[in-house]
Amino acid sequence: MLSALDLARRIEAGELTPRAVFARCVEAIAARDNEIGAFAVYLDVWERAVGALEDPGLAAPALGGTLASSPLRGLPVAFKDIFATADLPTQYGSPIYAGFRPRADAAAVALTRRAGGNVLGKTVTTEMASMVPAGTRNPHNLAHTPGGSSSGSAAAVAAAMLPLAFGTQTAGSVIRPASFCGVAGYKPSYRLIPLVGVKDVAWHLDTAGLFGAGVADIAFAAAVILDRDLWIDKAEPTAPRIALARTHLWPKASAAMQNAVETAARIAQAAGAKVTDVTLPKELEDAYAAQFVIQDYETFRALAFEYDRHRDLIGRPLHEQLDRGAAISADAYDAARRTASRGRQVFADTMADYEVMLTPSAPGAAPRGLHTTGDPAFNRLWTLLGTPCVNVPGFFDGDGLPLGIQIVGRFGRDRAALEAALFVEKAIRRKVGA
Amino acid sequence: MLSALDLARRIEAGELTPRAVFARCVEAIAARDNEIGAFAVYLDVWERAVGALEDPGLAAPALGGTLASSPLRGLPVAFKDIFATADLPTQYGSPIYAGFRPRADAAAVALTRRAGGNVLGKTVTTEMASMVPAGTRNPHNLAHTPGGSSSGSAAAVAAAMLPLAFGTQTAGSVIRPASFCGVAGYKPSYRLIPLVGVKDVAWHLDTAGLFGAGVADIAFAAAVILDRDLWIDKAEPTAPRIALARTHLWPKASAAMQNAVETAARIAQAAGAKVTDVTLPKELEDAYAAQFVIQDYETFRALAFEYDRHRDLIGRPLHEQLDRGAAISADAYDAARRTASRGRQVFADTMADYEVMLTPSAPGAAPRGLHTTGDPAFNRLWTLLGTPCVNVPGFFDGDGLPLGIQIVGRFGRDRAALEAALFVEKAIRRKVGA
Repeated sequence: MLSALDLARRIEAGELTPRAVFARCVEAIAARDNEIGAFAVYLDVWERAVGALEDPGLAAPALGGTLASSPLRGLPVAFKDIFATADLPTQYGSPIYAGFRPRADAAAVALTRRAGGNVLGKTVTTEMASMVPAGTRNPHNLAHTPGGSSSGSAAAVAAAMLPLAFGTQTAGSVIRPASFCGVAGYKPSYRLIPLVGVKDVAWHLDTAGLFGAGVADIAFAAAVILDRDLWIDKAEPTAPRIALARTHLWPKASAAMQNAVETAARIAQAAGAKVTDVTLPKELEDAYAAQFVIQDYETFRALAFEYDRHRDLIGRPLHEQLDRGAAISADAYDAARRTASRGRQVFADTMADYEVMLTPSAPGAAPRGLHTTGDPAFNRLWTLLGTPCVNVPGFFDGDGLPLGIQIVGRFGRDRAALEAALFVEKAIRRKVGA
Repeated sequence: MLSALDLARRIEAGELTPRAVFARCVEAIAARDNEIGAFAVYLDVWERAVGALEDPGLAAPALGGTLASSPLRGLPVAFKDIFATADLPTQYGSPIYAGFRPRADAAAVALTRRAGGNVLGKTVTTEMASMVPAGTRNPHNLAHTPGGSSSGSAAAVAAAMLPLAFGTQTAGSVIRPASFCGVAGYKPSYRLIPLVGVKDVAWHLDTAGLFGAGVADIAFAAAVILDRDLWIDKAEPTAPRIALARTHLWPKASAAMQNAVETAARIAQAAGAKVTDVTLPKELEDAYAAQFVIQDYETFRALAFEYDRHRDLIGRPLHEQLDRGAAISADAYDAARRTASRGRQVFADTMADYEVMLTPSAPGAAPRGLHTTGDPAFNRLWTLLGTPCVNVPGFFDGDGLPLGIQIVGRFGRDRAALEAALFVEKAIRRKVGA
């Protein structure tokens, strides 16, 4: 994989140019995307990329000297195809939006360009960020799903096509594909990354996030794009107090995933972290159940235009989700939102003595087949609570497929979550040699 | 003005047809909008309208018998031109978006059509919902501003061009123009009306709202469009417990506005309400100050594309706001958000014994001239807290310009806020004869 932080340092030191990084990404895309299918606008990207490489004049504005001194150092970045882009089609994974070209960039796209990122293309999303698979394959094993709904972003980073990609999570669409693809994934606190210009599917849940090779890479990218103090690579991270939470979903986790989480806990403890078993209060099981209600209710309303005008162009699983949402009353939705509010308070209380929680990123490794994107069971609660989540890669199952573990922080304490995740990641790398 | 509830009842009773209401609106637009300038896509609307009237075949799908039996009874509704519409241009009051046609309707537009509303056109917004005036005039006195940023929606309802219009509020853009134009205005609890497809300018503040002739009209519209139990016209409203809050901004209110608020308090008390003077805790002054920080910080990021790519097409006042936002650090923003959170808690505690608060809707009547849209000072705090607010019309200053008073409810208790506003409105109407 391509480490954004490492590439940025080498560009800063003059050992590498943005152009050379760009060329390497284009070569990787050309070599592998035909079989992986990570890019939604493959040909366009590839042709523009080749054109840029062959024509130094054309490429100069985007790949010139100023980019090398910008915060992001001209690094290539891709966006899930539910972020609006003024210079590339934006199709939300839906035939309803075939050929759609927005007038403006989404805020996250504009902020990435502002920080000196080179927006290379759009990655494949499931249909309107739902559970409907879109054909992208897992770079670790092409017969397996990369997860969803940010399928292309996770797969592109995993296949070293580029160092950074954006996705979104409404149930588990950043952390789960990151786990399945063996990359670092970061779902920040709710609304830390602006969602302006991103297709909304459930406004109390939708959260933009990032994929990168490792935890330090995504923290670096978030720091420079958001202009926030998320610089966690300057010193050795301090040992966190970790709450090990198997949650009521633990029986859903595979033996390999259970083993990965418990091994991570032991490794972190051996490295100096304080790890404590915690049982989550019953209110958080209720909050988990409330996430389904809030998502389905809001999606039926967020996609009112598509449902009313283009129902024949909506895939069956999304159609069924919308029908479920249509049957939910405002009273049931309001009750679910009150349950969510209580859950946020209960979680804050539960975490009073811990920086982070450790829990599975997914039920197990990426399922075989492209008919599913896997189960977001281990992600729904945290998306609802709005807490920062980080997928830490480093483990593999018996078939060589990645298994990620999830570090969950407290709302608004993203830096602490990223630091703890870096601590755990370093401990795992030293031990497992990943 | 045109009462949505009255029109709906007469359509239901068979005394009136949607077509007849539509014809009346088109005639009012043709007669008055040339001088008022409430519509952003005037010609298009007018031509389509005339075409529909002249061609019964063409008009049939939109104005047929099924509409008369729909929840909204085929009533005409207009949307501020920051709501996306698939069949009408959407230009955000900015030359950057000249001629822009979105692919989809905003969720609120789609839900309005779903409820049987006839989306008649787009109303004038200030430049990207900012403080930059856009030329719309106050129907009560053409030399005065109608307020902003939902200028056209407030003016169109006030001029009886149609019974219902949507706007948005980030500082005071629903309640202030409603007050200036003498119409009922409703800013619901934060995110009660979906913002999907609405131009985001400050994501923790932006709230969609409604304008109508009276409180019962907007409650009826919100009830059927949101499919929520906001039916407050079925029985006489119960007498509310009202906290009269002059707030630390009271000296900013004109003598006429101070008199209107105190008169409203006396009238409500005489009608049976319990009115208690309250002094707001200091934390709410801090929250008021935090609103500026959050708005400017977020707007600079929400409009990153426009600022970076089309700065020459941004008006000076908005440009200055964006420059202020650029100078705000993430730490200052985070501190403002914590202050806002504390403010929400303090407000809930303050309101423990009251259904609603009574306070001015604006510093006074609409200022003379079209160079300003007035001051949202009396609205910023409530937008930040996310509480439901209702402008109750009924008073006038010595020059015959409307003065609205503001009913502020508790977060999520929109029905109670609307009921209390209806109680106060009825008491004022009985007394003042408005």
